[in-house]
Amino acid sequence: MATQNWKERAAAKKRQQQESIPKEWVLTNLPDKSQLDVSEFPRTCGLLTGREIEITESYVDVILDNLAKGSWTAVEVTTAFSKRAIVAHQLVNCLTEIFIERALARAGELDDHFRRTGSVVGPLHGLPVSLKDQICIKGIESTMGYVAWIGKPVTKNAVLTDILESLGAVLYVKTNVPQTLMFPETYNHIFGRTLNPFNRSLTSGGSSGGEGALIGLKGSPLGVGSDIGGSVRIPSAFNALYGLRPSFHRIPYAGCVNSLDGQISIYSVLGPMTTSMNGIKAFMKSVLSKEPWQYDPLCVRKRWNEDEYRLLDYNGGKQLCFAVLWDDNVTMPHPPVLRGLEMTKQALLRAGHKVIDWKPLYHPELYEFVPKIWGAVGDADYEVATKLSGEPIIRKMALVEGNLDTPVEDTIHRFPPLNLTAFEYWQINVTHRELRQAYLDHWRETAAVTGTGRPADAIISPAAPYVAPPHGGNWNAQYTTVWNTLDYPACVVPVGARVDPILDVKKPRDSFYGDGDRRNWDSYDPETFKNAPITVQVVGRTLEEEALVGISEIVDQALQTYKSKL
Amino acid sequence: MATQNWKERAAAKKRQQQESIPKEWVLTNLPDKSQLDVSEFPRTCGLLTGREIEITESYVDVILDNLAKGSWTAVEVTTAFSKRAIVAHQLVNCLTEIFIERALARAGELDDHFRRTGSVVGPLHGLPVSLKDQICIKGIESTMGYVAWIGKPVTKNAVLTDILESLGAVLYVKTNVPQTLMFPETYNHIFGRTLNPFNRSLTSGGSSGGEGALIGLKGSPLGVGSDIGGSVRIPSAFNALYGLRPSFHRIPYAGCVNSLDGQISIYSVLGPMTTSMNGIKAFMKSVLSKEPWQYDPLCVRKRWNEDEYRLLDYNGGKQLCFAVLWDDNVTMPHPPVLRGLEMTKQALLRAGHKVIDWKPLYHPELYEFVPKIWGAVGDADYEVATKLSGEPIIRKMALVEGNLDTPVEDTIHRFPPLNLTAFEYWQINVTHRELRQAYLDHWRETAAVTGTGRPADAIISPAAPYVAPPHGGNWNAQYTTVWNTLDYPACVVPVGARVDPILDVKKPRDSFYGDGDRRNWDSYDPETFKNAPITVQVVGRTLEEEALVGISEIVDQALQTYKSKL
Repeated sequence: MATQNWKERAAAKKRQQQESIPKEWVLTNLPDKSQLDVSEFPRTCGLLTGREIEITESYVDVILDNLAKGSWTAVEVTTAFSKRAIVAHQLVNCLTEIFIERALARAGELDDHFRRTGSVVGPLHGLPVSLKDQICIKGIESTMGYVAWIGKPVTKNAVLTDILESLGAVLYVKTNVPQTLMFPETYNHIFGRTLNPFNRSLTSGGSSGGEGALIGLKGSPLGVGSDIGGSVRIPSAFNALYGLRPSFHRIPYAGCVNSLDGQISIYSVLGPMTTSMNGIKAFMKSVLSKEPWQYDPLCVRKRWNEDEYRLLDYNGGKQLCFAVLWDDNVTMPHPPVLRGLEMTKQALLRAGHKVIDWKPLYHPELYEFVPKIWGAVGDADYEVATKLSGEPIIRKMALVEGNLDTPVEDTIHRFPPLNLTAFEYWQINVTHRELRQAYLDHWRETAAVTGTGRPADAIISPAAPYVAPPHGGNWNAQYTTVWNTLDYPACVVPVGARVDPILDVKKPRDSFYGDGDRRNWDSYDPETFKNAPITVQVVGRTLEEEALVGISEIVDQALQTYKSKL
Repeated sequence: MATQNWKERAAAKKRQQQESIPKEWVLTNLPDKSQLDVSEFPRTCGLLTGREIEITESYVDVILDNLAKGSWTAVEVTTAFSKRAIVAHQLVNCLTEIFIERALARAGELDDHFRRTGSVVGPLHGLPVSLKDQICIKGIESTMGYVAWIGKPVTKNAVLTDILESLGAVLYVKTNVPQTLMFPETYNHIFGRTLNPFNRSLTSGGSSGGEGALIGLKGSPLGVGSDIGGSVRIPSAFNALYGLRPSFHRIPYAGCVNSLDGQISIYSVLGPMTTSMNGIKAFMKSVLSKEPWQYDPLCVRKRWNEDEYRLLDYNGGKQLCFAVLWDDNVTMPHPPVLRGLEMTKQALLRAGHKVIDWKPLYHPELYEFVPKIWGAVGDADYEVATKLSGEPIIRKMALVEGNLDTPVEDTIHRFPPLNLTAFEYWQINVTHRELRQAYLDHWRETAAVTGTGRPADAIISPAAPYVAPPHGGNWNAQYTTVWNTLDYPACVVPVGARVDPILDVKKPRDSFYGDGDRRNWDSYDPETFKNAPITVQVVGRTLEEEALVGISEIVDQALQTYKSKL
């Protein structure tokens, strides 16, 4: 039965999704497909009231403050974001599960509580939070885009779901992912492809691409993605968001569905994606306040440390020394990415910080290590899920004749299947540890050149060697994956600029690091990437989320001050 | 060349070791081999002065205090413990590398510093610390008992070695291990077998059995062992010591040699073994003060937390609720072990705490999981080291006709070789995580029965189903390994009693859990285990080392008060 009907099962699920959208929110005035930048459409489409536009364009701190004061109700905030999420979905196809009725009922209970007691149930009281499809909510499906997983509502909340609800969050939508999760773009056979709201000919990134596009359109104030090689940071970068990849085991992952389950060399982690640094902090601080290690056996027993956030170990945040990774000597970033790094450097210098160059160490070796992990078991993991329904394994995200709905059929494995023995696999783990050791030593030894007495306080890195590329063109996740491999927390911060054909001209290059570098440079043309957001990545050391949030706020503030004075 | 001469190479190394012993400390009045209890011999042998006996019979806090006050010099403390270590070695064969001259030079430098500045170099100033053979010291070999590794002094300190030296510790000897490290007894082809000082017909345990016997004879005030399945706790239990297995990645392991390198499902960890709880605390607090995460990329960034140590989350340590694991329903412990648990229960009740029974959950499944990890790669790891020299892999620790120096030749694998693929290995990791989840939930749910509003504050568990057994008889490490599998920190605490044929009579049993249980019961006879120390294991939850130390101190104090009033 399985093989013949996977397309029908996928189509039926997609119809079911369409039916879960409130009828009155189905728009008839959608922009034509040829309109690439749809980022302003939600505020002009007519579905949202002025107040709803105000609510959905507020940062997390303002939303929480208004809810806690009783100025806004949870129902009206939930309604506003639900409407905008549905508008976003019609523009860029970013959602999987939609359960607004349930969300409004929950919001009503929160409002009742507030009216009855005059107080909030927790620090996220009434805040709508969107979740990547793999984060389980009892009674709702987590297909992860696999046809075989349709029709199986999960029976138990993920630990993070329980925690978010206990903090007062309102869950209302889940968001799209690529089949297998192991792509930095977002397409699967059930829900199709998610587009970039700033230029729909570009990818929203992945694997948390549904979150990226949704929050990019302000259809959610705060979402949760997962990141094993950049899956929080790439869509954050491509959609002008703030996105944090925490260290392994800081945020509870227990109870989520996943790919490559049992692979424990490079763990996937959950992290927040949002429109401000205060959203990142609110998520981290409030989730950790619930002591997730009581519920997830892998979680690190470490409370949010306010002293670390206030940078007591980093001169109180004054006169820091940043190290800029301009180029990994493998793939030179495109001009807009380099401009973002330069803007950040200038902003930090003006704010009184020091900036040095970061020398990449063993990046080729780290890049070589990663596909050995992803390819260690060949297709074995993906086959478990796909064979049940007969759907093929998607191996490429490129378009066929511009058709967004059909991936190129391809037999080439993205990660060469190694089918390793356990002993061979262990030897890769040894290399991994040696590389982590060398990189940590390298970082510590920068104390000799910073002039602060400390090692570099953070690395400023590209999030990718390009801004959001055309669909099928996101071939290189090395600028994010390298930090997963080292287990360094990393936060994407928008520089507040978009690709500008005048500023971001292509310059000729005489020599290249290799074929990939040449191909990447060849692919650059400012028109192709027009309007794509520019961001940087701020990188800290393992398990210093608090300090990284504090330092990223400094970077963000420096950039805002710098731009305001240009 | 390799195969024919491994015995000669081993013998040459052993002669070299003998030559590294100061001639004047070679004793001619050693007790006859038939004398089983040699625990009192060091104080009566005549080599140590009265003051040296006082020094070596002091706890870590007293030693550190006298050093910091200048009452004792580092040279005299180092001399005292060096002498006693050499006596111990002649009684129970506990050492591998001996470098007393180097240690005295170092101690002299510390004394110079103290005289010059009036202050100590760090919190462990002048404290002799013994290290398990695998912990690398620059310029000294770390053979780990492998013949192939003879003659290769290591070129770099382990991270912990650097930290201990920076804290002021004096390193002077390294201690014996079993070949492969994967035995709970201590025998290898180079250094031979380590005996139990309380009864030399019994094992010292393993794999940190050299440490156990050395510290049992007070030849070291504090040692560092490693523990992947009980290797700190078993020799601590068999030699009447305090021994802590910290959680994964709390104490830096970087720069040590190891077995099963690259196996990351159940990590080996380093932990302290000593003669008092204050020694455990001094080690943990001082090592963490050096921020090991700056040097070891796997180390958790978590400072020693004094609030957690003072049990602020546990009612300040008052009216705790302990849960006693009397029996895992797989192998019932021998009578002296049950007596130790009962003494602890009575002591805790008298101290005003509550005691409930711990219901073991999924112990058979957890026990089944472990050999899948150890056996995942078959002999591949051991062969890398043994084939280079041609020495055989040791598979059994039993004696041939009572000869301590020859293991039984055996072709039976202790861990059935599985030679798994990486994918199969990943599936075992999934099971592992599910078992950890279930156990954590089970523990949390005890809040319903403790009456304190909290889950059980700690588990009191046997360290083994027996006290120190005869050589070759330590077949069951499940009461320790289960906590490694769950990554729960666990601390061995002596109850201050020894096996007593009058108190520890064998009682008939009608039924057994299985063959292993029956065999274990059959092996009990109080005469066989005469004089062996009795201990318990105090178990906490992942990464709560501070609280576990605080709670273990409460258990220790309760036992001492209880015994003083008997």
